[in-house]
Amino acid sequence: MNTAYAQRMSAMKPSTIREMLKLSERPGVISFAGGLPAPELFPVDDIRAAAERVLAESGAQAFQYGASEGIASLREQIADEMAARSIACSADDVLITTGSQQGLDLLGKVFLDPGDAILTETPTYLAAIQAFQCFEANFQPVATDDEGVVPEAVDELAARGLARFLYVIPNFQNPTGRTLSLARRRQLAEIAARRKLLIVEDDPYARLRYRGEHLPPIKSFDTSGQVIYLSTFSKTVAPGFRTGWIVASPEVRDKLVIAKQAADLHTSSFDQLVLERYLRDFDNSLHVERVCAAYGERYAVMDETLRRQMPEGFSWTRPEGGMFLWVSGPETMDAMAVLAEAVDAGVAFVPGTDFFPRGGGENHMRLNFSNAKPEVIRDGIARLAAICARRL
Amino acid sequence: MNTAYAQRMSAMKPSTIREMLKLSERPGVISFAGGLPAPELFPVDDIRAAAERVLAESGAQAFQYGASEGIASLREQIADEMAARSIACSADDVLITTGSQQGLDLLGKVFLDPGDAILTETPTYLAAIQAFQCFEANFQPVATDDEGVVPEAVDELAARGLARFLYVIPNFQNPTGRTLSLARRRQLAEIAARRKLLIVEDDPYARLRYRGEHLPPIKSFDTSGQVIYLSTFSKTVAPGFRTGWIVASPEVRDKLVIAKQAADLHTSSFDQLVLERYLRDFDNSLHVERVCAAYGERYAVMDETLRRQMPEGFSWTRPEGGMFLWVSGPETMDAMAVLAEAVDAGVAFVPGTDFFPRGGGENHMRLNFSNAKPEVIRDGIARLAAICARRL
Repeated sequence: MNTAYAQRMSAMKPSTIREMLKLSERPGVISFAGGLPAPELFPVDDIRAAAERVLAESGAQAFQYGASEGIASLREQIADEMAARSIACSADDVLITTGSQQGLDLLGKVFLDPGDAILTETPTYLAAIQAFQCFEANFQPVATDDEGVVPEAVDELAARGLARFLYVIPNFQNPTGRTLSLARRRQLAEIAARRKLLIVEDDPYARLRYRGEHLPPIKSFDTSGQVIYLSTFSKTVAPGFRTGWIVASPEVRDKLVIAKQAADLHTSSFDQLVLERYLRDFDNSLHVERVCAAYGERYAVMDETLRRQMPEGFSWTRPEGGMFLWVSGPETMDAMAVLAEAVDAGVAFVPGTDFFPRGGGENHMRLNFSNAKPEVIRDGIARLAAICARRL
Repeated sequence: MNTAYAQRMSAMKPSTIREMLKLSERPGVISFAGGLPAPELFPVDDIRAAAERVLAESGAQAFQYGASEGIASLREQIADEMAARSIACSADDVLITTGSQQGLDLLGKVFLDPGDAILTETPTYLAAIQAFQCFEANFQPVATDDEGVVPEAVDELAARGLARFLYVIPNFQNPTGRTLSLARRRQLAEIAARRKLLIVEDDPYARLRYRGEHLPPIKSFDTSGQVIYLSTFSKTVAPGFRTGWIVASPEVRDKLVIAKQAADLHTSSFDQLVLERYLRDFDNSLHVERVCAAYGERYAVMDETLRRQMPEGFSWTRPEGGMFLWVSGPETMDAMAVLAEAVDAGVAFVPGTDFFPRGGGENHMRLNFSNAKPEVIRDGIARLAAICARRL
């Protein structure tokens, strides 16, 4: 009887990322596979001080049940941060989520019925594919180039009125590192209003820009309430707290709050209070500057080493921020086969296919540059390049 | 086009519990509405010491991404706790969830297609109704008496083979406070094996027994792997950490891990480590004894005050533990109308209808006794009894 159930179960197979994370835990393996921030850069002392203050001053409130929306004082700080990102909103427009991942899950719950179409960049974020697959989404990849998703292609698909939403990562996209151009941000906001198309703007890397000018998010051009904006503290403070947020129109937010209540009641009170105190008492912008300086250097080392070592026929993106770059090999390259050899040689990455919900992309590799120090990046890229050269 | 979507949205209305929690936040309102533990009993000093040790010793690990299954050392402690509850399992059988509520959500995601039947006690837990409603479950209430759900009724419905699972709270059930008898636990495990019926055993209150003997859970009689066991630290340590767990067969657990990964990647690393350290370094059993002594007294005061004050025609359950008792009024009573008057008189509770997924139960009230001190309970019950007497 349960055909949909059987289909969903077969779709819910362990992801390559998860298996890769296991491989990359082997001692001695250089991992460009995960999407992990550099733990040595976490503001451990400041978080410790914030946690001690919460423990000393908040007492029982830090340990009690709380509202599904999240703690008001943290939502106020997020509204301030949104203003700095050119998004005008109040604390009431913010919903705290258990990481951005939960934001994707709640959107699936509220908006997706089995078979519903959603538009995505080509390629798109693996964990978003997983989140929406749970709701049996019908992925419609949209033409995408170096400036991001192509608005005309979105418009054409939206005109048919079949898509529940467009899912897009505007800055330093995962997996490609590409950034959506300013003109296209405006265009997408205009299409959203005109076609009544929801846009899910997932922006975890907004503040991780190492070169060039910050661009205002699509949400900042949203006049119709059709843009839903997601972000997180995972990259600017620490991911272990699992604390992200959604900014949406009151109508959408109310639905998301109800879904959130059914999903986990609320995000950890303790973690929310520690983050709130950290943001209030310490200079997070200075911390983010330090992170950007370190990641920017790591990116430059990876790019330079690739240039020196990779054989002809390989190209890669030049992201201005974020955590990933995207290597494209010759059409005949099979990144899964490269990975098998690479793991034997002590280096790991994520093969491209996982980012294409409808298959393809066999000749691509996603490389993370935030989680390894420069000398390790040089070593790992040298190993990887040697394998690529041998396989040509 | 989206009929299922529209139905789900209309089902996803804010719950009475949520509105009640808002009412009960008004200053001066005595709330028997929430399901909140008593914050003055939280082991604040011990948690603070555990958190300080984690912050001093774990450093970056406490703030980094972790495995979806949860932290191994915490799962080992949970396996020990399971042994104390007569359930033989290893750390590998345990999945950490973001509160028990997430356990319900993941079960819905893995097992429910729109319209799938699930069997529940009559009445059943409001937040479980909400969790399963998101997946458009078809609720099949099963006959239930003072010894809990009636096995023969379960067997008859299971024989038709239409139910995805039976959802049951064995100890001090929410909302009734009833406990499933030992004989019925054995019978349900036997039915699960014979009919290949999954049982979801949700046991948050296991250790909150104030009188009588602890009873082994249904899962302890499970020979077929058909019983999925859920519990939480919310009642024995603190709910603000949003940390619960599921014990299931390897096959079911693997599916749940994948759903968990898509839902929020993993539960807060920091919270897991703090709980692990608290359980390792401090005497949680002694803490639970203190909680039981306090809640047992509060229950006794509520029961005694009800006996002295409530008019003829009202009866209520005599739970041996947990946090709730269940008041039944005359058939003609409308608990929603009583609530409206009660809130004006400064006392709140949850009306019975919310616990009946298919309607009914208008003449019942759920009263929480864990969150108010004895003198407040006396005052609140006196106010409530006066309203009930006036309305007769």
